[in-house]
Amino acid sequence: MAKSKFEYVKDFEQEDKCLPNCWIVVRVDGKGFHKFTDLHNFEKPNDLRGLTLMSRAAADVFQVFKDIVVGFGHSDEFSFVFKKNTNVYNRRAEKLSSLVASQFSSSYVFHWTDYFPEMKLLYPPAFDSRIVLYPTDENLRDYLSWRQADVHVNNLYNLCFWSLVLKSGLTPSEAELKLRGTLSGEKNELLFQEFGINYNNEPQMFRKGTTLLRKCMNFPDSPKRVVVVRYYCDVIKKPFWDDHPEILKAGKTPEVDFVDGMDYFELKKQSGQKE
Amino acid sequence: MAKSKFEYVKDFEQEDKCLPNCWIVVRVDGKGFHKFTDLHNFEKPNDLRGLTLMSRAAADVFQVFKDIVVGFGHSDEFSFVFKKNTNVYNRRAEKLSSLVASQFSSSYVFHWTDYFPEMKLLYPPAFDSRIVLYPTDENLRDYLSWRQADVHVNNLYNLCFWSLVLKSGLTPSEAELKLRGTLSGEKNELLFQEFGINYNNEPQMFRKGTTLLRKCMNFPDSPKRVVVVRYYCDVIKKPFWDDHPEILKAGKTPEVDFVDGMDYFELKKQSGQKE
Amino acid sequence: MAKSKFEYVKDFEQEDKCLPNCWIVVRVDGKGFHKFTDLHNFEKPNDLRGLTLMSRAAADVFQVFKDIVVGFGHSDEFSFVFKKNTNVYNRRAEKLSSLVASQFSSSYVFHWTDYFPEMKLLYPPAFDSRIVLYPTDENLRDYLSWRQADVHVNNLYNLCFWSLVLKSGLTPSEAELKLRGTLSGEKNELLFQEFGINYNNEPQMFRKGTTLLRKCMNFPDSPKRVVVVRYYCDVIKKPFWDDHPEILKAGKTPEVDFVDGMDYFELKKQSGQKE
Amino acid sequence: MAKSKFEYVKDFEQEDKCLPNCWIVVRVDGKGFHKFTDLHNFEKPNDLRGLTLMSRAAADVFQVFKDIVVGFGHSDEFSFVFKKNTNVYNRRAEKLSSLVASQFSSSYVFHWTDYFPEMKLLYPPAFDSRIVLYPTDENLRDYLSWRQADVHVNNLYNLCFWSLVLKSGLTPSEAELKLRGTLSGEKNELLFQEFGINYNNEPQMFRKGTTLLRKCMNFPDSPKRVVVVRYYCDVIKKPFWDDHPEILKAGKTPEVDFVDGMDYFELKKQSGQKE
Repeated sequence: MAKSKFEYVKDFEQEDKCLPNCWIVVRVDGKGFHKFTDLHNFEKPNDLRGLTLMSRAAADVFQVFKDIVVGFGHSDEFSFVFKKNTNVYNRRAEKLSSLVASQFSSSYVFHWTDYFPEMKLLYPPAFDSRIVLYPTDENLRDYLSWRQADVHVNNLYNLCFWSLVLKSGLTPSEAELKLRGTLSGEKNELLFQEFGINYNNEPQMFRKGTTLLRKCMNFPDSPKRVVVVRYYCDVIKKPFWDDHPEILKAGKTPEVDFVDGMDYFELKKQSGQKE
Repeated sequence: MAKSKFEYVKDFEQEDKCLPNCWIVVRVDGKGFHKFTDLHNFEKPNDLRGLTLMSRAAADVFQVFKDIVVGFGHSDEFSFVFKKNTNVYNRRAEKLSSLVASQFSSSYVFHWTDYFPEMKLLYPPAFDSRIVLYPTDENLRDYLSWRQADVHVNNLYNLCFWSLVLKSGLTPSEAELKLRGTLSGEKNELLFQEFGINYNNEPQMFRKGTTLLRKCMNFPDSPKRVVVVRYYCDVIKKPFWDDHPEILKAGKTPEVDFVDGMDYFELKKQSGQKE
Repeated sequence: MAKSKFEYVKDFEQEDKCLPNCWIVVRVDGKGFHKFTDLHNFEKPNDLRGLTLMSRAAADVFQVFKDIVVGFGHSDEFSFVFKKNTNVYNRRAEKLSSLVASQFSSSYVFHWTDYFPEMKLLYPPAFDSRIVLYPTDENLRDYLSWRQADVHVNNLYNLCFWSLVLKSGLTPSEAELKLRGTLSGEKNELLFQEFGINYNNEPQMFRKGTTLLRKCMNFPDSPKRVVVVRYYCDVIKKPFWDDHPEILKAGKTPEVDFVDGMDYFELKKQSGQKE
Repeated sequence: MAKSKFEYVKDFEQEDKCLPNCWIVVRVDGKGFHKFTDLHNFEKPNDLRGLTLMSRAAADVFQVFKDIVVGFGHSDEFSFVFKKNTNVYNRRAEKLSSLVASQFSSSYVFHWTDYFPEMKLLYPPAFDSRIVLYPTDENLRDYLSWRQADVHVNNLYNLCFWSLVLKSGLTPSEAELKLRGTLSGEKNELLFQEFGINYNNEPQMFRKGTTLLRKCMNFPDSPKRVVVVRYYCDVIKKPFWDDHPEILKAGKTPEVDFVDGMDYFELKKQSGQKE
């Protein structure tokens, strides 16, 4: 068979191993989600179903890649952190990046009807992904802090914007004009004065994004299980890292049979457990 | 806001522009499809529904990326060729690679029920992707020839293997042992002698894989439309390239409103057109 | 011995194979040559000894790398073109790039006294290098055209500048001011009107740069030898490529015992040969 | 001028910034030094002049790159470590790698006659270079330990080999055969029994390689100066890192006017100083 004659084309493939001993971060990001959320009538500025579907899809990625130690997402993006010494797929960057994007997208469509039972998915959405390496724990923490700071900035702006549009009847461009150049404090004031909103009472999930961690937990009528747990907490300050020392320790991840995306508080109720 | 303090982490992202003036090939490949096809009762060695779903998902990728000029797939893989001078996403490799993997996976799940109406999708599958550059037309043709030669070799083997298992009642390891080291001619002979199968009469789709091209066609009651057309033909020899000179010319792709995956022969029937 | 314990650090090395079937160009460029040429009293705007030393060092690079098919240089830079299918050092980019820079620099210092017998080398100069891939013959020709167009633009400007400074007594900033924004034609006119210089009569080496080719030539009292020959000719237009078809053919380079940098015209005299 | 028409070829250059916050190591390595040292009658197994010339050339590299904090070399190789946060040449890998190779080679030839006054340099040697990133201090220490462990292994072997050849009159292949498979202890024993050599009394420079550090020192009749100092010491164990804490601290390197390669012990004599 003429197979061998053509096989030289394999030599054009290029290797792309991630530098060893670095944290590997893969971040997926929705393509054209402005249009996608419009067409599917997402609530503005935050759609609880949409955000929960995002972290549900992310939990599937945790299930596939046992070496992911923390995830963080908001809006139409989600970041996954592989432990420094992971050797999955021999640390080939393109393999990791494409598989995370693929699994996330596939799961997003798969779980759609669970979160939007009355809204048919009109077309299959796509997410790009990028891979970034961080040499130190400090760099990794700063990466997550960067994403969470971004949640804060965007969410405060969006809450103002949509309040002005939906409640005060401004056009989008009027709302944009009104907000242009305002500082955080001014936006907080505007929310309080015009809409009686105390920003700090907004749901944590909207203000802090969703953090996913892998936790080993007790359940009333079953042996301990490792599950993926959702948190809506500050990841910038020290307490988070004190509470979850396993992230930076990044030892060998225990093998688990089943992993699912669960809400931390629900879980505590369900398990009757103090973590 | 503390945003700026963390933003330095963006500098850790690395650029990865594809070399200009090269064909860009992105190939997606199913992850763990042996298990996936088993669990979903795919027919062996080829499942018409599964293969058609693959090219349906591929057609969505064509719709998203107007600069893809040819696609080729079989089994659980599909290759997409971007024209040499494409500037989509500024030729950033990871962007192209991840978006193709993501769109393909998302579409595969989205269209599942159209092709497997009686089989529930049990879990969301994933596809990895890789990107490879080819400097010359000859290299590109050899790439496609390589993939099609692979279809032939694998399909002939699989047809023998599954005939031995399903019709002669051999165990998989007995079948494997019997086929080990046999040449093409011997496999053809075995099919004919033991199972009355003339390999050359097997469906073209199984023997040749599926080629996708973008074609501008007439329809009885509408203006010309550009559609994505399925072919099951030889891409190794010259006639294919003579019949479709637009692939290597790779001029500016015409903008189209709607693109779908259609069967060449159905289409001819439907359009009453000689291409 | 504790050797094995540390050897894991080798895994941090990254592979960087050049894409196959592309022209490989390595260009070296002098570091801080403005200061270097000042300190060593180079003639302005062109120093015959300095330019000849550059091509002498380049000839050594040709001797080391038999797969270099053409070189082109001027001022403090030199480009080397490896044939498309070279497999030297397994096409590892960093190996090729660093070795060319190293050999060129080493040879520049080594041959210094032959070209500057009365000027002591005050300190060892350095050259950086970069590697660039070109997929097609047209791209390669355009690369060389780009470098030669640069020679023209720079040389015309420098001749004007130094004439104004050295002959008209302008300060460098006065000369710069006078030339700012002038077109080619105006510079030609200025040379002719103020200095009686017909630019087209300037030495070819200054106007066209130095091209190095490997040629097999007859010598009166010895067998044919392959030597590296200097040309000062147009490489942009077609005749150059018609006269030297071996560059783009890039077949297997014949093994040679000795290679030196020789002047084409001297060589013709010496060999009594019409090429 | 036609310049712009060709300038697109610049787009084929690829960026290659080193990941931030990693130690950058560039290692140069002699090309064909077996032949080079034979032709220039280097003493075997170690030539004091040759090794000192190597570190003299390395000191020039220190002078050019102020962000190099430690160097280590032996035989025909030398490693240079840039501090983690260096921003020299915007951390472009090829620029750093090629300039180090170039400066080292240029300086090697330039200083040749100072170390080999009676041996004419027969041809200009070349050194390749490679760049490797290390994310942590531990990785960097292990890198240097790896190179020093290599010195030990090679030097012990070479001392045995050349003793057998030069003193016992064995042919090279007889010597090789005799040493094949021997352990460290056996080689030590052989040196002692057959040649009365106590390996531990061999010169430190031969057994430990040469370490270069930048030190600020007092001199009798001048202000403090920063000089490059040669050490021949263990870099694997803790005391070295305790004695030279500035390496890993890698703060901003002080600007210096002049840097030279000096012997630590000579220097102490010269400066009358206890470090």
